[in-house]
Amino acid sequence: MASASSAASLRHLLRRPLCPPLLRPARRLLCVSSSTLTHGGDSSTSTSSDGALGVVDLNPPRGTRDFPPEDMRLRTWLFDNFREVSRTMAFEEVDFPVLESEALFIRKAGEEITQQLYNFEDKGGRRVVLRPEITPSLARLVIKQGKSVSLPLKWFTIGQCWRYERMTRGRRREHYQWNMDIFGMPKVRAEAELIQAIVLLFERLGITSSDVGIRLSSRKVLQAVLNMYSIPEHLFAQVCVIVDKLGKLSREEIEKELISTGLSSEAVQGIIEVLSLKSLSKLEEVLGSDVEAVADLKKLFSFAEQYGYADWICFDASVVRGLAYYTGVVFEAFDRKGELRAICGGGRYDRLLSTFGSEDVPACGFGFGDAVIVELLKEKGLLPDLSRQIDDIVFPLDEELEGPASSVASSLRKKGRSVDLAEDKRLKWVFKHAERINASRLILVGKSEWERGMVRVKILSTREEFEVKACDLE
Amino acid sequence: MASASSAASLRHLLRRPLCPPLLRPARRLLCVSSSTLTHGGDSSTSTSSDGALGVVDLNPPRGTRDFPPEDMRLRTWLFDNFREVSRTMAFEEVDFPVLESEALFIRKAGEEITQQLYNFEDKGGRRVVLRPEITPSLARLVIKQGKSVSLPLKWFTIGQCWRYERMTRGRRREHYQWNMDIFGMPKVRAEAELIQAIVLLFERLGITSSDVGIRLSSRKVLQAVLNMYSIPEHLFAQVCVIVDKLGKLSREEIEKELISTGLSSEAVQGIIEVLSLKSLSKLEEVLGSDVEAVADLKKLFSFAEQYGYADWICFDASVVRGLAYYTGVVFEAFDRKGELRAICGGGRYDRLLSTFGSEDVPACGFGFGDAVIVELLKEKGLLPDLSRQIDDIVFPLDEELEGPASSVASSLRKKGRSVDLAEDKRLKWVFKHAERINASRLILVGKSEWERGMVRVKILSTREEFEVKACDLE
Repeated sequence: MASASSAASLRHLLRRPLCPPLLRPARRLLCVSSSTLTHGGDSSTSTSSDGALGVVDLNPPRGTRDFPPEDMRLRTWLFDNFREVSRTMAFEEVDFPVLESEALFIRKAGEEITQQLYNFEDKGGRRVVLRPEITPSLARLVIKQGKSVSLPLKWFTIGQCWRYERMTRGRRREHYQWNMDIFGMPKVRAEAELIQAIVLLFERLGITSSDVGIRLSSRKVLQAVLNMYSIPEHLFAQVCVIVDKLGKLSREEIEKELISTGLSSEAVQGIIEVLSLKSLSKLEEVLGSDVEAVADLKKLFSFAEQYGYADWICFDASVVRGLAYYTGVVFEAFDRKGELRAICGGGRYDRLLSTFGSEDVPACGFGFGDAVIVELLKEKGLLPDLSRQIDDIVFPLDEELEGPASSVASSLRKKGRSVDLAEDKRLKWVFKHAERINASRLILVGKSEWERGMVRVKILSTREEFEVKACDLE
Repeated sequence: MASASSAASLRHLLRRPLCPPLLRPARRLLCVSSSTLTHGGDSSTSTSSDGALGVVDLNPPRGTRDFPPEDMRLRTWLFDNFREVSRTMAFEEVDFPVLESEALFIRKAGEEITQQLYNFEDKGGRRVVLRPEITPSLARLVIKQGKSVSLPLKWFTIGQCWRYERMTRGRRREHYQWNMDIFGMPKVRAEAELIQAIVLLFERLGITSSDVGIRLSSRKVLQAVLNMYSIPEHLFAQVCVIVDKLGKLSREEIEKELISTGLSSEAVQGIIEVLSLKSLSKLEEVLGSDVEAVADLKKLFSFAEQYGYADWICFDASVVRGLAYYTGVVFEAFDRKGELRAICGGGRYDRLLSTFGSEDVPACGFGFGDAVIVELLKEKGLLPDLSRQIDDIVFPLDEELEGPASSVASSLRKKGRSVDLAEDKRLKWVFKHAERINASRLILVGKSEWERGMVRVKILSTREEFEVKACDLE
């Protein structure tokens, strides 16, 4: 999977082809903001025959990405790994529109994700969003399928998610996210399965448990503390969202926010003390062993031993995750050097479906983005060599041989080979091109050979060259 | 590829699992429009602890689709075929944001596609769209890459496209489109290559040239007629968009629209006469053989012979396609029964890049949607059997064996097998489940076997059953 000569492959991956530029340089265009284009777009700036505006911004919209071939190869490789792990875990792939009703994402706990909704009104007056996350769509489809499905459901999806925030910190407005979700399994077996999937993915990518760990806890820990201080149920999600900012905000700021929800300072201290625990036995001491949180976590650690990924996971009471709807075990993968944001995160959300008006179904899942993992792979030199690779280049040595070259290329393609057909170029260019795209063979269609029904084959790795009957070419 | 027992496989594909419903039925919800949700969404309708609204619409936004597992398998199968053909043609995959600047799509020729833009203003005041087509994004990236790439570029992409229109005629607001585009090949070799790709796709899907044909013509035909009547250049795109409606609108309506652009009725008659031609030799008689359109088309028909797809294509002067930017050869695939819309369409667009402020690069490409092809495959009984398929189900016969079952499942997954782990079910359910998901083997972890380090394996196709050492299981 992972390339040994990792530094070299990274260079290779990041390098653009070195061939001579054949596309004449585009005029360097000023990036004209679209508002200028719209408001200033009168006929004086219009130059083309069908009235299009004469200058467009060459960049995709702010905070979004194009995927030229080399970036696309990396993305495909990553997604293939997501899919392969999902397949071994026996999950089924599903998908949803990137555009969803805003109502699916209206929650009042103050989450960052709902404050940064990429929302707008469509022409029919409907409030819609470019979805910030996929879980609500999954839940919606589970409810919709209702009777027709058998539980448990094990679904995965890979999709683009959006947010709208001021473009500081170099963060983007879109990313792709791999989601795996299980509906209908109330016990921590479900979490144990999800964590195995994450570990299998890391292992496929060449990442070890000394590079990455998975912190876990349970929201039931916080729930137990809230119960101790008789804090009303409706504050639970809000408190979770606030304490998730520990580490980003100062302790004083967190305390202030908690107090402002109406908590006593005694309760706030209690919460913060429990959240600092890093040991399950210590947690048991504080909460008692009959608390559900403790039993769940002990069970999950015992599963980890049996699955064989115990060295990847650790208990950390400060993990609560930022989504309002989690109710039980929560977890996140982190780089052990502590330089990156969370690589992925997830948890149990047993009560999401009732917020949509359905009966609840126990559920848990995770989201795994395409950004942090690629940063980590780059840093560790684990990006694979993903250069272009094709089988054959067919080249007619003479313009009048373009017909025969067509039938040679056509028949090779029908046999499943990937075939490029070069034309109107010099032989020297064709050889360079072959090198650039890692072609295996060059097939030259020359006049004297063709008259005998033959073509000339050159194996590019060995420089071996021979004639073969065109109809025998495989 | 194509299933022989096609009617049966279609039934299979469309059928939901017959298993007993284990998810309690979702309460039947009224579909509350999102405007009600937004404007009427005060605390009285809010029932959940974190303040989410109590009832959501279970459907995706109007005109969009969810992809539950069975639909997703079909989509994946179709996209895999798109990708496989693109690979054999030596095209590279690229991708773009589904959200683009509106400026990329502002054209004044009256195209349906630009009249139905799914556009809006983002929070930063930018005019953006959910893209209606992908070609402008491709052109933008070609310009942006400028010097760094070597021509010709052969790119493909599969992406979702959007439009906003009143939801009549049961049409959707989104579809997926496979695009293949070649930049930097001025001759009809490029068109010949694209048409081979389309034919290879049809052949892979089991469609023959008696089911489907590809009509082709060239916009240069219309250009020649316009020249004959000295019609000014800036009317060209507009005239093309109007005459593309032949067949949808009456001849009288078309004539009226043409006259309203300022054309003489003599010119209008000339245009309509030429567009009725179905034979290349007739066209040559009318326009003369030194006209570029005739030479291009003759060359393309000669290529078709050499590639081996001549029986798929036919000349039809009425093909102009509805996009403003086409300049040369245009083509579309159609079902020979004449019941469906065009299956795909494309053409040459040598002057698109200059409308974006760059120097032009000769280019052509096609878009192939995911809707009409699936209708055709259904009708022909060519949809494959795409039921779920997994390798193993591991089932502990006793709750205390869930640990051993974990390690058995884990080790099989590490060997690449797709493994489902069943728990808290009866053996009878597990057998039904195995049948439903087409499992190959059932692996039972029982107490007396496990004490000897063994598990029980049942091959589900043969009902063969045997014991094997857990560590030898492959």
